[in-house]
Amino acid sequence: MTDEAPLRPEARAPRGFADRRGRDLTAERRIVARVSEVYERWGFEPLETPAFEYADALGKFLPDADRPNEGVFALQDDAGSDEPGEWMALRYDHTAPLARFAAQNWETLPKPFRRYAYGPVWRNEKPGPGRFREFWQCDADTVGSDRPEADAEIIAMGCEGLRAAGLGDGQSVIRVSNRKLFDGLFDAGGVTDAVQRLTALRAVDKYDRLGLEGVRALLGEGRLDESGDYTKGARLPSAVIGAVEAFLVSAETPGLSRAGVLDAVAKAGASLGAAGEAALAELSAIDRALTAMRVGEAEVKFDPTIVRGLEYYTGAVFEAELLLDTKDDKGRAVRFGSIGGGGRYDDLVARFTGQSVPATGFSFGVSRLASALRAAGRGADDATRGPVVVIVFSEDDMQHYLDAVSELRAAGIAAELYLGRAGMKAQMKYADRRGSPAVVILGGDELAAGEVTIKDLDAGRARAAAIADNEAWKAERPGQQKVARGDLVATVRAIIE
Amino acid sequence: MTDEAPLRPEARAPRGFADRRGRDLTAERRIVARVSEVYERWGFEPLETPAFEYADALGKFLPDADRPNEGVFALQDDAGSDEPGEWMALRYDHTAPLARFAAQNWETLPKPFRRYAYGPVWRNEKPGPGRFREFWQCDADTVGSDRPEADAEIIAMGCEGLRAAGLGDGQSVIRVSNRKLFDGLFDAGGVTDAVQRLTALRAVDKYDRLGLEGVRALLGEGRLDESGDYTKGARLPSAVIGAVEAFLVSAETPGLSRAGVLDAVAKAGASLGAAGEAALAELSAIDRALTAMRVGEAEVKFDPTIVRGLEYYTGAVFEAELLLDTKDDKGRAVRFGSIGGGGRYDDLVARFTGQSVPATGFSFGVSRLASALRAAGRGADDATRGPVVVIVFSEDDMQHYLDAVSELRAAGIAAELYLGRAGMKAQMKYADRRGSPAVVILGGDELAAGEVTIKDLDAGRARAAAIADNEAWKAERPGQQKVARGDLVATVRAIIE
Repeated sequence: MTDEAPLRPEARAPRGFADRRGRDLTAERRIVARVSEVYERWGFEPLETPAFEYADALGKFLPDADRPNEGVFALQDDAGSDEPGEWMALRYDHTAPLARFAAQNWETLPKPFRRYAYGPVWRNEKPGPGRFREFWQCDADTVGSDRPEADAEIIAMGCEGLRAAGLGDGQSVIRVSNRKLFDGLFDAGGVTDAVQRLTALRAVDKYDRLGLEGVRALLGEGRLDESGDYTKGARLPSAVIGAVEAFLVSAETPGLSRAGVLDAVAKAGASLGAAGEAALAELSAIDRALTAMRVGEAEVKFDPTIVRGLEYYTGAVFEAELLLDTKDDKGRAVRFGSIGGGGRYDDLVARFTGQSVPATGFSFGVSRLASALRAAGRGADDATRGPVVVIVFSEDDMQHYLDAVSELRAAGIAAELYLGRAGMKAQMKYADRRGSPAVVILGGDELAAGEVTIKDLDAGRARAAAIADNEAWKAERPGQQKVARGDLVATVRAIIE
Repeated sequence: MTDEAPLRPEARAPRGFADRRGRDLTAERRIVARVSEVYERWGFEPLETPAFEYADALGKFLPDADRPNEGVFALQDDAGSDEPGEWMALRYDHTAPLARFAAQNWETLPKPFRRYAYGPVWRNEKPGPGRFREFWQCDADTVGSDRPEADAEIIAMGCEGLRAAGLGDGQSVIRVSNRKLFDGLFDAGGVTDAVQRLTALRAVDKYDRLGLEGVRALLGEGRLDESGDYTKGARLPSAVIGAVEAFLVSAETPGLSRAGVLDAVAKAGASLGAAGEAALAELSAIDRALTAMRVGEAEVKFDPTIVRGLEYYTGAVFEAELLLDTKDDKGRAVRFGSIGGGGRYDDLVARFTGQSVPATGFSFGVSRLASALRAAGRGADDATRGPVVVIVFSEDDMQHYLDAVSELRAAGIAAELYLGRAGMKAQMKYADRRGSPAVVILGGDELAAGEVTIKDLDAGRARAAAIADNEAWKAERPGQQKVARGDLVATVRAIIE
């Protein structure tokens, strides 16, 4: 074991992993900070669980499988010894660690337990363009409340969080439904086979892409798609297919209120069974609570076609959709679609304790939301200005340069001394790369005269773009002013503000 | 491969990993936020590299060793396929990823490149009490400047960061020396063997624990410690041992200024050779820059006994020491000692590119600093108050409760509705566990009278402690007041502020 490889390693991040810096990173941090502020105001406490969980706690795989890494990054914990020990894996979401934490600490937690979490999650998938194996998620969950008001609270808080992150009115909507509506439809239609029900739900999940005809085929015998691939159908009885269809289209009238959607669904003719009736009652309670929380009809809509996270959710389900008109680098329109979602989920805590504990939560992708905001021109431009750069000419005058930097920082202005060994031209280029708003020049003339020259780089750039002639530019020196040394901070502040 | 283990897994975090929440987590986040604000004001940009690096980039181990996991958490990247691929490992610090990033992007980076980073690092070590395998570090580095002013800047910024994190005057000191002082001493004494020099440096590193006599033994033949263990010495020539001793004690006069320490070291009689003279000149330049940056003599001291990170650093070295008098949970005095450090390090970028790039940096442990601040009673108490809790009595009055919660939140007051199904007594206990400052009661009487009852829980606790008699407590109802419903927000605000 040596400390150095014999050949020089190639400098590159692992496949599917990305470095984040500058404007993008600042934008993501701003989202997290603003959403955290909202979530804490709503009474959700911060929690950070470790990157690793024991594999059995994640419940995603068994270590004796051929590929223990499938879907997650896993390793055997030797705990610093030579003996291989238990399998551990990096978390692939924030929900499984929450369930473990809640089970481990249930006796001493305040109940219901509200917490939010953010941070990286890891997926061991085949990397591809725009497909990362590490990305940030931000979750909020309430564990231990079966009240519909808990679902409403999560939804309303999600709306406020997205607004705080930078989304304006009408730029997003959370669509809500209830998984038990389909339970009721299937119960009423005598469809009891679990595989058949799951296949049918997966068909419904494709409604927004395939339309009614495509879903009808998938609920029945099957569907041949344009590429020639055949997907086997759920083979529901035709009466049930009809009921599902009637259900799906029941609330398509534009402009329906949440209560209006519930009315339309109830009147659609399909029997929803006991589970479906319970679902409608829950949604009605959620609507009342949302209204009490001043959540507008445009912000949160009921939509019976939402069937999210099939095996995971057991009641209310939510999906947050971006309505932004966004453009990519080449000016092409981009549809972002779903930015997050959640719902009421079956007892993950019971996996550990055997004790049933209801829970509900909402999650969104931080990087994904940041990309969407950036594409929509709502990035973090103002927060990403570089520091003011003080130019270095002579070793002997270092004290003067450092004084200028200190004064600017003391005034709350980001500032730095150029610390390389290049000349004036390279230092100006450096300031430009840093995105500096201004450059401070304390040459021999300035120091002798008790003055300072300040270049406003934005003004210089703007003026330079307007002046075709290089000689004219040099003569005019756009954005450059010489002031008394005592006016340094005030002059720079005037440029920045 | 199934989704569920046949038996219920035990709910526990992996060994050496900890959940963080509440006051502790808030305190750590506050440190990171405040230090980040300082570092950005000094012109350092944020950078986040992935959790994983290729093992060859980390340079810590070779994958063909018996224990590829030694010291780091490593796995073979199958990249979503069935074929085992390159070894990856979780970062064990923020410096190795920085070197990889700088090498990868050198052409396009502004140079010198200043960046700061924070986040978890992972060490695959044997877990023990208080010894974690995942912890947060916060680093700042300047890559591409060989100027002593770059070292001074890192040191001065480190001081300001620690102050921003909550350390007061005189609660910490950064001790500075230069690794080349010992290079010079050894050169001058004809000690050229690398192992001998390293052994000698390790001996010097124990000076604060073993004192002059212990170090003398370790520089010579060797040392038998109290437990009977024998450590072989560096076997330096006795003249060199004498020179090192004279060097170590040369600046022990209390109250020496930084310039005074350099004078004392220069006059100590030992020849420092060319490397040592260069080191003194560098330290002198660092002193001038620190003084220009208004860094007091008490905040940053020169101390020739500092020899940090032996194989890693090549010039200036820094060590941040806490001078706090802290107490543990049982009131016992705790010495925290070193909280971080850094220095100028040999070309890590050249590992990749072959091109020499000077760099200097400072790093501290976030959790460690948070523990120290907590033990010193400078925790984040005010930021960790729970939300105001609105009590739930009747389903029918849910609208009234939700209105109260919304009003409080809209006024910027953290508030929540109790969403469990327990009675009044359990709800009061819940509010207590949440650390709530106040509880809002909207019972039938209050609603009928257009009033609201507000309990000040802090006042209640204080008064309850003073009243011995339970009956008297009940009669007095300390901290409880009934006000007009319209005065809800103002009354709660008066309690909180």
